[in-house]
Amino acid sequence: MAQSKRRLNLNVGINPTGYLHEAWKYRSGTRHDIADPDYYLRLTRLAHEGVFDAVFVSDMPLLRLEKNSRPSQIIDPLILATALTSQVPDIGFVATVSSTFNSPFNLARRAQSVDIMSGGRLVINVVSNFVPEVAANFGKDPLPPRDVRYPRAIEFLDVVKKLWASWDPRREGEVSEEQFWDASSAHTIDHEGEYFHVRGPLNVPRGPQGHPVIAQAGASEGGIELAARHGEILYTNVLSGPAGRALGKKVRDRAATHGRDPAGVRIVPGLVAIVADSREEALRKHELFSGTGSEDGLLARFASAHGIDPADFDPDAPLDAARFVPDPKRIQALGFTLGLVDLLTHEKLTAREAVRRSEGNHRLVLGTAEEVADQIIELWADGSVDGYTLQPPRAPDDIEEFVRKVIPILQDRGVYPRAYEEGETIRDRYGLPYPD
Amino acid sequence: MAQSKRRLNLNVGINPTGYLHEAWKYRSGTRHDIADPDYYLRLTRLAHEGVFDAVFVSDMPLLRLEKNSRPSQIIDPLILATALTSQVPDIGFVATVSSTFNSPFNLARRAQSVDIMSGGRLVINVVSNFVPEVAANFGKDPLPPRDVRYPRAIEFLDVVKKLWASWDPRREGEVSEEQFWDASSAHTIDHEGEYFHVRGPLNVPRGPQGHPVIAQAGASEGGIELAARHGEILYTNVLSGPAGRALGKKVRDRAATHGRDPAGVRIVPGLVAIVADSREEALRKHELFSGTGSEDGLLARFASAHGIDPADFDPDAPLDAARFVPDPKRIQALGFTLGLVDLLTHEKLTAREAVRRSEGNHRLVLGTAEEVADQIIELWADGSVDGYTLQPPRAPDDIEEFVRKVIPILQDRGVYPRAYEEGETIRDRYGLPYPD
Repeated sequence: MAQSKRRLNLNVGINPTGYLHEAWKYRSGTRHDIADPDYYLRLTRLAHEGVFDAVFVSDMPLLRLEKNSRPSQIIDPLILATALTSQVPDIGFVATVSSTFNSPFNLARRAQSVDIMSGGRLVINVVSNFVPEVAANFGKDPLPPRDVRYPRAIEFLDVVKKLWASWDPRREGEVSEEQFWDASSAHTIDHEGEYFHVRGPLNVPRGPQGHPVIAQAGASEGGIELAARHGEILYTNVLSGPAGRALGKKVRDRAATHGRDPAGVRIVPGLVAIVADSREEALRKHELFSGTGSEDGLLARFASAHGIDPADFDPDAPLDAARFVPDPKRIQALGFTLGLVDLLTHEKLTAREAVRRSEGNHRLVLGTAEEVADQIIELWADGSVDGYTLQPPRAPDDIEEFVRKVIPILQDRGVYPRAYEEGETIRDRYGLPYPD
Repeated sequence: MAQSKRRLNLNVGINPTGYLHEAWKYRSGTRHDIADPDYYLRLTRLAHEGVFDAVFVSDMPLLRLEKNSRPSQIIDPLILATALTSQVPDIGFVATVSSTFNSPFNLARRAQSVDIMSGGRLVINVVSNFVPEVAANFGKDPLPPRDVRYPRAIEFLDVVKKLWASWDPRREGEVSEEQFWDASSAHTIDHEGEYFHVRGPLNVPRGPQGHPVIAQAGASEGGIELAARHGEILYTNVLSGPAGRALGKKVRDRAATHGRDPAGVRIVPGLVAIVADSREEALRKHELFSGTGSEDGLLARFASAHGIDPADFDPDAPLDAARFVPDPKRIQALGFTLGLVDLLTHEKLTAREAVRRSEGNHRLVLGTAEEVADQIIELWADGSVDGYTLQPPRAPDDIEEFVRKVIPILQDRGVYPRAYEEGETIRDRYGLPYPD
């Protein structure tokens, strides 16, 4: 590990109006913020003030037209990453990119270009799209079948990494006056796999990080395999300490069998934090921001989401984990449901308790700034997680509040830096190894 | 036309070591400039100092490994456009993009994202790749057949433009408190064509220019049709006044038959300028930068390029245009050869004269700064062209020299601005109409 002292890593989501679908009603600003460059710059400067390691944007190449929809994934993530890292120093950028609707050559080139232009501050969060409507924006064919999703994504990243390593100016020998460069510093990759045929080399040389850091969120069997082979920052849903430790161990052990350094895997799950002057006020904010309006509303949503008959539902009875094992045939992001199963396996909880433990499919922490800081430190201190990717319910309001109220407490506790200090790249800041 | 007074428009190429293949031997700097963000920034600031309308990068997603190759198309053009417009005000960016190896949805999204982030300063130069090696970076399939190249590119841009128009916040009606936006401001495009099936809408709204300006270079029959339908800035090779006027008339007339405003087409060909303290010195620089070493070398290259038997070659005999009509079966960018045919049709020239009229397939002007300025103004003043896309033989040297020596003359002659003044977008600066 390049890092000498372990410290909490924090990213923050900047999808423009916030993470929770209904919370925009309580945010400041107008809907025109979503396409306003100055607004994104303001969010990123705020994140920089909070010494966040990186800002994060989720993505889906789709505009939903339902009356109650809320466009929140607008500017292409790699374009946004470039614009913001060009204007704000230090801070990294986690850009969500699709392995389903990009060619490996184009994606490798664009990502390496951003890493070079930002001085080594790019993380790509690789997703394989699972929403069928997306496919209709890319041709006549339906989505690749589910059982192909992860094998194809794994091969996609195999190719991308080969391309990233295909031209390394450090391999240059002596260059005669008649030649511009030593062409032997680049080589074709001649990849001929099941899903991709790519000759290479990439026409972008190795960048400041060797290659961009790879983040990944899947928690299903296929997702774990992808994480073990290629994942460096795991954004996977983790709702409890034991679940975090189990995930870390599983991925690191399997990474080692693929010849990777297990220290090259960081667990940095999503986190929804709701801060208020009292716990009661935070509970009330949770009810509003979730769109359920009340604790009964939260419970009703929980029952409905899990197909529980309301007539047969005792919110104060302990929940049985086995009841929530997901149906593998259903089209959904499995990781989120698996998070709940993990939580219930390790803790006896009632529905009334469980609904306060996650929101928007991520771990929920709520209370005063002190209470929120305590809960964040708790799972970091015992090694369950390496940090968190904060998903503010509302933007800009909840980013501002976190930066003003929670960050100073984390700094006072000595677990979080007061300034950018470990080096210039995201690998330095996360203590991640550089690729060979 | 939005512009009240006609003025010369100028772009400048910033492929990092310069435009001419052999000229790098005489440039300052090192080969590591090609992947150095600060170097690109320096070139763009220099261009801004010269009040250029835009910087330009050509592109090809390919790294050639021949010993005497010179990598010069490195950073992804749209990423470079974003980084540089984020750091340098006013100046536009012409980014070359491929209609062959991108999906219309992704390209429409990225380009509109850059246009928004830059405040309306993007031009895309759309090319359909014709180099077979490129295809091997994108799968097993060969390039689409030649006769499909332009019809496919035309449909590609049809789709892209439909996507750009698919979400316009100006169409929003009243939005109730319960809703985030008026979803009726966006609509699907349901495009089902010969080459593309795309549902839409795009998840990026209309940007400051309506959509990015479209530049285009083809001069073959298919290229002219593409230009007439979609081209706004024509970068096509023009070696003489009559050729420029003929091209402009042909494209504008045909654009009108497609219902377009003919004023929406600007002729801004490539230009290689070689400036020296005397014409003799400029001729000598031409011989060096071209890699031919002497006038005899230029003539030998000319003979060889056109399959002329050296034994049967009188460099001082008038050339016959018919001799140079290109073979449509050969794989090449036809526009460049057609430029020579046009030149010879309108002017009686010997080979000794012709080799000094174009270099790197573009119009060549050489001499003192005054002589270069005269030649630039000449074809602009009589309406043959609307401006030029300067392709400096060497970067940074020839950009610097042009900015310090030629730009002040153009300004003193009253044909070129002393500062950015017409508005914030490239459409304003070129007097191009905004799309409906």
